[in-house]
Amino acid sequence: MYKTKGYAAFSASAPLAPYEIQRRSPKKHDVVIAIDYCGVCHSDLHQVKNEWASAVYPMVPGHEIVGRVIEIGTAVSKFKVGDLAGVGCLVDSCRTCNDCLQGQEQFCDYGRVGTYNSIEKDGVTRTFGGYSQSIVVDENFTLKIPSNLELSKVAPLLCAGITTYSPLKHWNIGPGKKVGVVGLGGLGHMAVKFAKAFGAKVSVFSRSEKKKADALKLGADEVILTNSPDKIILSHNKSFDMIIDTVSAPHDLNLFLQLLKRDGSCVLLGLPDIEPTINIAHLIMGRKNLSGSLIGGIAETQEMLDFCSAHNITCEVELISPEKINEAFERMMKSDVHYRFVLDMKTL
Amino acid sequence: MYKTKGYAAFSASAPLAPYEIQRRSPKKHDVVIAIDYCGVCHSDLHQVKNEWASAVYPMVPGHEIVGRVIEIGTAVSKFKVGDLAGVGCLVDSCRTCNDCLQGQEQFCDYGRVGTYNSIEKDGVTRTFGGYSQSIVVDENFTLKIPSNLELSKVAPLLCAGITTYSPLKHWNIGPGKKVGVVGLGGLGHMAVKFAKAFGAKVSVFSRSEKKKADALKLGADEVILTNSPDKIILSHNKSFDMIIDTVSAPHDLNLFLQLLKRDGSCVLLGLPDIEPTINIAHLIMGRKNLSGSLIGGIAETQEMLDFCSAHNITCEVELISPEKINEAFERMMKSDVHYRFVLDMKTL
Repeated sequence: MYKTKGYAAFSASAPLAPYEIQRRSPKKHDVVIAIDYCGVCHSDLHQVKNEWASAVYPMVPGHEIVGRVIEIGTAVSKFKVGDLAGVGCLVDSCRTCNDCLQGQEQFCDYGRVGTYNSIEKDGVTRTFGGYSQSIVVDENFTLKIPSNLELSKVAPLLCAGITTYSPLKHWNIGPGKKVGVVGLGGLGHMAVKFAKAFGAKVSVFSRSEKKKADALKLGADEVILTNSPDKIILSHNKSFDMIIDTVSAPHDLNLFLQLLKRDGSCVLLGLPDIEPTINIAHLIMGRKNLSGSLIGGIAETQEMLDFCSAHNITCEVELISPEKINEAFERMMKSDVHYRFVLDMKTL
Repeated sequence: MYKTKGYAAFSASAPLAPYEIQRRSPKKHDVVIAIDYCGVCHSDLHQVKNEWASAVYPMVPGHEIVGRVIEIGTAVSKFKVGDLAGVGCLVDSCRTCNDCLQGQEQFCDYGRVGTYNSIEKDGVTRTFGGYSQSIVVDENFTLKIPSNLELSKVAPLLCAGITTYSPLKHWNIGPGKKVGVVGLGGLGHMAVKFAKAFGAKVSVFSRSEKKKADALKLGADEVILTNSPDKIILSHNKSFDMIIDTVSAPHDLNLFLQLLKRDGSCVLLGLPDIEPTINIAHLIMGRKNLSGSLIGGIAETQEMLDFCSAHNITCEVELISPEKINEAFERMMKSDVHYRFVLDMKTL
């Protein structure tokens, strides 16, 4: 067993506080990872505050994990001690359903195990995430981390990276395509980087002039202010192949549907509290699609990391010590982060 | 000029009544068609009652037209006098935009001319539809009608047929796929026939036990009663590749989204008055699509007619004389039609 220090939520309202958990001794296919960095995803905040109504406390959040292998199980073949390793949103799945067999473990209904606030396939063991010093994960759900990238900036690729990479690939974004990105946060800024790297023209939709310089610096070709929808429709009507919408706050989707080309897709990554109303005419007139996407499978996550290595792509992060997590949550609620907080777990 | 008798709406509330219109003398590429049969589409009712807020009276509805060519323009190459000919929802488009060049004239924004209640590209001439004895249409928007099918049962293929054929083709329905059909009316019954002809397994969703026998007779493999959603989810959860929803009355779409497989599509053909609210989680968990589709292009309409000829597919119709049109509208409002009224224009 590994005793490991971490930070846990003890209720929906109390600040996170230090907590000691025990990790299992490695089974045959397990790797033990000493965590260097863990990204702070907006869903950590949802989970901690029990906004998805499934919180079990104490909860140790964190699913954007990178570190080094310090021990391996007897049958591990993918890693050796000393290797860099990463863990994303999943640590197990049934491995036998169609979704799993097709490398889409994120959609497995039968044995999907989240990295935290979830239950292992034994039906009893709770999972604890990366706001901690170490984690023990099956090698099949552990990612190989490229060595040429700054490690703290790699951590958020494990969720924010794959969540945007996967739909851009699935909807065939490449040269000649025009992509809109709604929301320039942890997900949005990676959508801009990937869409550009794939060769697309990228427009960022923003409510404020303030984000313009940042968006352009990230690689966007233009910034479209959403404060005058009528003007946007005049100049951008039916011009987008795909709009990737990262905003989970309630907002009008009908504007974005209008801006799609025939057969275009508005792909939602965030889950608004309030169910949006959709003007079906916008779907019918142009055979358009309102779609969703959820992280990505393990193989595709590895593909994404390798792509990042080859194209020198990482996240923009603010590195903080774990003691600052409550402050970070406060700032995230005000969207005050460029673009992802990453906890330096080595300082714990 | 052709003087032609027809039936017109003179206001949103008055019954349709006889009306004489003048058709233009054929231009170079025009064919003059003596109309044998015209289907009565539910959208005729929407238009006549000005439910789409664009009605201009007098209005001669009808866009499911079949008949015989009685005169041709000097440059017509596709038809000769005596040929069977058909006209659907469109009689012209810009012919130069991307949508037109790709055979998707139904999405042309620049010069699309509806068969009735629309304005020709000259900007002034109103169009009058098939509730009349004859029509003059450019040969490029006129369909060749197979001679081996019962002509009155072919008429509704020009709208109800192509509106269901096109999305089933676009979403690659074929052997091994499972298709749900919501609503068993003019569109729905054709969706069943086409989906079966393409080799799919077909389930009809119905609110009442009454339609079960009819649905099975049309070729459906099963009928799923929608009165206990919880039971449906238990037995049909995530099992459909595509659900084709023909219902324009407001109804819950979230049930159907849940029933889709990963990457499945719920395709809407009807336009509800009230914008539905969508539970975005159903799109995200399974990378699903809520989509729309609108009739089909001219080339695909011809392909559909040729497919129907080869597979002996026609619509189920109730043939009535044009004098009965107001009665037919009354019955349609009560969904009392199996499955399409067709006006026998020869009796006028």
